[in-house]
Amino acid sequence: MQIGLIGLGKMGFNLALNLQRNKYQVVAYDISASLVEQIATKGITPAYDLLELTSSLRGRRVIWLMIPAGKVVDETIERLLPLLSENDIVIDGGNSHFKDSIRRYEYLKSLKINFLDCGTSGGLSGALNGACTMIGGDKEVFDYCSQVFTDVSVEHGSLYTGKAGSGHFTKMVHNGIEYGMMQAIAEGFEVLQKSDYEFDYEAVAKLWNHGSVVRGWLMELTANAFSKDKNLDKIKGIMHSSGEGKWTLETALDIGVPTPVIALSLMMRYRSQEEDTFSGKVVAALRNEFGGHKVESK
Amino acid sequence: MQIGLIGLGKMGFNLALNLQRNKYQVVAYDISASLVEQIATKGITPAYDLLELTSSLRGRRVIWLMIPAGKVVDETIERLLPLLSENDIVIDGGNSHFKDSIRRYEYLKSLKINFLDCGTSGGLSGALNGACTMIGGDKEVFDYCSQVFTDVSVEHGSLYTGKAGSGHFTKMVHNGIEYGMMQAIAEGFEVLQKSDYEFDYEAVAKLWNHGSVVRGWLMELTANAFSKDKNLDKIKGIMHSSGEGKWTLETALDIGVPTPVIALSLMMRYRSQEEDTFSGKVVAALRNEFGGHKVESK
Repeated sequence: MQIGLIGLGKMGFNLALNLQRNKYQVVAYDISASLVEQIATKGITPAYDLLELTSSLRGRRVIWLMIPAGKVVDETIERLLPLLSENDIVIDGGNSHFKDSIRRYEYLKSLKINFLDCGTSGGLSGALNGACTMIGGDKEVFDYCSQVFTDVSVEHGSLYTGKAGSGHFTKMVHNGIEYGMMQAIAEGFEVLQKSDYEFDYEAVAKLWNHGSVVRGWLMELTANAFSKDKNLDKIKGIMHSSGEGKWTLETALDIGVPTPVIALSLMMRYRSQEEDTFSGKVVAALRNEFGGHKVESK
Repeated sequence: MQIGLIGLGKMGFNLALNLQRNKYQVVAYDISASLVEQIATKGITPAYDLLELTSSLRGRRVIWLMIPAGKVVDETIERLLPLLSENDIVIDGGNSHFKDSIRRYEYLKSLKINFLDCGTSGGLSGALNGACTMIGGDKEVFDYCSQVFTDVSVEHGSLYTGKAGSGHFTKMVHNGIEYGMMQAIAEGFEVLQKSDYEFDYEAVAKLWNHGSVVRGWLMELTANAFSKDKNLDKIKGIMHSSGEGKWTLETALDIGVPTPVIALSLMMRYRSQEEDTFSGKVVAALRNEFGGHKVESK
């Protein structure tokens, strides 16, 4: 089977190699010609523009987007549309918002093009060696592609989640959970760190990954991180985010689900991005106003 | 090596079998004679009182307590003391507060009895088949017993964490993390459940356990729970707790560590135990007072 892959960033590049290992004929395109050249050295058919990509694919085309969420997806779809034929399939394997995926599904359906939204988890190693994929869209279209999803995923690591948008919805919630789990782990380690004991954090994380209730991949990664930098002295505690935690919280607010842990995990990320806070100044000023409590001057 | 085991509840009973499988000569006591009879049918030496237990052990005694945290531990130690000899070792394998363990360590030290605090994770299956143990106390005393901890734990599942109290401290923080991780998972599933999609929760939990970032034992248990009761219709969402989450939060407050996720996980457990809340009444009444917003009558 042939797959047209658009996007050779860190995830897309690894996915291309994953598909190749699974005997798919991959034709790969990226806006960066140097990434296309790089993937060509791996024996994958390069395409230096979308016409070259689409004209290299025979029969019902399957085109997998692995590009950043947002307007790039819409723009890419618009550029693709004149080159596609009725019944071709576009898969969005990126981290798109599920509402965008529903909109794109309906738009493409009106033009007789099929669309699947595929949430992809497992990080870079997953993209390369076996990911976890959650796929939404029309069942018939999923069935046509299901072997691809099975092949690029670990065993039992692929699921048809239902109608359009459900794949990206599932991935969004997965990431919301991830925020909460990471913050919980992180808070625990800070309690260890501020205590009177002298813990070897790598040893504790490794221990907890063997037989404890909190064992799992995130704890493995925690041990990895401490193995490289014993007390994480080399990095700052600034936590960025790419949007899916925020979307999970926004969705929870829309549908009325109390999600305090996911919410606070996100708020702690925002807090970490501020060196000082205006709210902190307000509280300090108020304590000073009513109680004469000392403020710290700049 | 001989081990005197006190406490044959669910954890202690399984630990007795675990020790036996690892070729230890276990002498087991519980206040419930019927539990002692039960363990005797498994080929383990029964002791129907503490004198029988201590007099069955030769040389430097190792006595493992697997009993509920709190005053039962102090009472048991008091009853044991007249029966112990200088240099004997008492291990507390339960979920005691680390401050109690420090106090007991110092008290026993003043009487020339050794004390180790051993946090034990991994649930009932861990106690039976291989636990995760984190041990605090004097290094020499730990070294004397270290093979036992290695044997009853999974591979790499045992760690000497440092001075007295550090084992139970580590276990306490482990449980705090567990609260946060569980609440994060739970919030995610409620977002799935309240969405417009119809998810198969067991399938999603199983999927997420294969190749995703949030894979781990808690996600396995989530899949298990949904496999027995598809939508958890048979149980109420009342979340009890045994204290270690509260202790983690109290410790964080004492040493000044912001732990919002662990805190909110605990608050959500408390909230789940109230059918209605007084704070809810206050807010409803206030909205009515200032804005004439309708209240719901009892």
